[in-house]
Amino acid sequence: MISVGLDVGGTNTKIAVLNDKYKILKNIKIPTPLSNGYDFFIKELTEIAISISREYQKKKISVCIGIAGDVDSDRGILRYAPNLCGWKNKNIKKDFERVSGFKCLVENDANMASWGIYVFEVKRKVKNMAVFTLGTGVGGGIITNGNLYRGSTSTAGEIGHMIIKEGGEKCNCGNYGCLEAYCGTYALIREVQRRIKNTDSYLKKYGFEKGNITPKIIFDLAEKGDRICLDIWKDYGYRLGSGIGNIAVLLNPEITVLAGGVSRAHKFFMPFVKKRLSEYGIKTPINKMKILISNNEDIGVLGCASFALDNK
Amino acid sequence: MISVGLDVGGTNTKIAVLNDKYKILKNIKIPTPLSNGYDFFIKELTEIAISISREYQKKKISVCIGIAGDVDSDRGILRYAPNLCGWKNKNIKKDFERVSGFKCLVENDANMASWGIYVFEVKRKVKNMAVFTLGTGVGGGIITNGNLYRGSTSTAGEIGHMIIKEGGEKCNCGNYGCLEAYCGTYALIREVQRRIKNTDSYLKKYGFEKGNITPKIIFDLAEKGDRICLDIWKDYGYRLGSGIGNIAVLLNPEITVLAGGVSRAHKFFMPFVKKRLSEYGIKTPINKMKILISNNEDIGVLGCASFALDNK
Repeated sequence: MISVGLDVGGTNTKIAVLNDKYKILKNIKIPTPLSNGYDFFIKELTEIAISISREYQKKKISVCIGIAGDVDSDRGILRYAPNLCGWKNKNIKKDFERVSGFKCLVENDANMASWGIYVFEVKRKVKNMAVFTLGTGVGGGIITNGNLYRGSTSTAGEIGHMIIKEGGEKCNCGNYGCLEAYCGTYALIREVQRRIKNTDSYLKKYGFEKGNITPKIIFDLAEKGDRICLDIWKDYGYRLGSGIGNIAVLLNPEITVLAGGVSRAHKFFMPFVKKRLSEYGIKTPINKMKILISNNEDIGVLGCASFALDNK
Repeated sequence: MISVGLDVGGTNTKIAVLNDKYKILKNIKIPTPLSNGYDFFIKELTEIAISISREYQKKKISVCIGIAGDVDSDRGILRYAPNLCGWKNKNIKKDFERVSGFKCLVENDANMASWGIYVFEVKRKVKNMAVFTLGTGVGGGIITNGNLYRGSTSTAGEIGHMIIKEGGEKCNCGNYGCLEAYCGTYALIREVQRRIKNTDSYLKKYGFEKGNITPKIIFDLAEKGDRICLDIWKDYGYRLGSGIGNIAVLLNPEITVLAGGVSRAHKFFMPFVKKRLSEYGIKTPINKMKILISNNEDIGVLGCASFALDNK
């Protein structure tokens, strides 16, 4: 038995193949085939799976597709994917299985990244774990009793949309005061633009080309000791600390993992996460929880492939 | 087989007996035996269990003790109980089993109330459920995949101590902006005292005796159309809505249950819970979740007894 993970993002699709010992046989990336409609997209994905089954001479392979969107994983239906042509109510499981003949699971991509971290980084050594994926948005995943926790409509783990500050900053979801409204990269950039009036001349001062503010630049400026950017990471850590603290008192996980591109800035924000956590009055779940940083960019597709193997 | 539930509170201990069909054979209440120290407390509890085993002529009974405090339910240790003489690190399981000879579980009381609601009110018809216990404090319990979810140190479900408003009102736990700092009865009373300068003359105006403000009085004043108390319930509902919404996006339960004395005021606060929930941008877990009100005062002890039976 081999398994195939397909991690479908708005730009690229990652592909991983595992053998039944969870050894990585293949790990590649292609542009997501979005330009010719949904049927073409399904045809392209099934052809990848068929060619892998031929390459490894396996008649039966187990497939899991991770998708950036709202997924009904019980039925394998993509409810809505703003970043995939805005597709709505696509029965990916049925369509993929019909065309390919292989069994296929369809899951949310943040859940699959969480599963990948659980299997490959934490090595299933704990029972309860939470993951924060820190990127443009703030997503997440929850492991309870050693299993992926999806909730009743497979939409559990929307960590970024818990309110931490009623009446606070506007979030991309339309609500105010969500964790993401402080810890999404768009929120970080919004804050830099508020505090630095003329970003072009500010960047020039530090020897950078003028251009758009990115999380990388906020990181680099902090690295050079820039007070404004250090303060922005400080506030980021404090707010992320509220999110992590809330998860600790609610879910009491052994481990919370910070993943996604922004987690690379951990040296700037982690001291303030810890400060914030120290303010919580309920000490046991806070003090007993470890916080880990994950920086494996392929963890999402590895999660898909291992999830396919676990549920073959 | 019969099971015995003991729900130990700071004032009273409730006792329930179930047969193996979950039929209630007995449901009584005694003052909690706290006045003669811990050994006497254990002796009294074991004598109750022994007398029940004799009464029903069962040599083997299954016991679960629910305790208001921080409990390590894996080991059956009461870590800390501010309302039970401030006891710390008491191995109730070991002590009870040694003296009585019966197997005994020790659990947090809010978790047991949640289990009671799950078994007797929801009749295990859903897989994922959250409970908010609305009283002096705000507690809770979480059911995932049909099981009580305790987390890594049995301290999951501290719903009242998630931050909903950073830098907000002071909470009894020492932190600021917790849900409980708005929805605990102490917070309600604090808010009335802020908005009504002279409560004695205010109460007199409505024909009440002068005296301390209680949640019951805030309810009664709202019933008489008092604007200030109606507004207080409105704010209560809005904040509770943030708590319920956060649970929806994180845990995506089929059902959220509001229990505890304050839930009786639901007609005043529920419209504002719903208004608050409508502001969340992540719609699926909000729209698919039902909210129920539970008003069974014995649900905690029934939860203990049924939990003992489920884990016999």
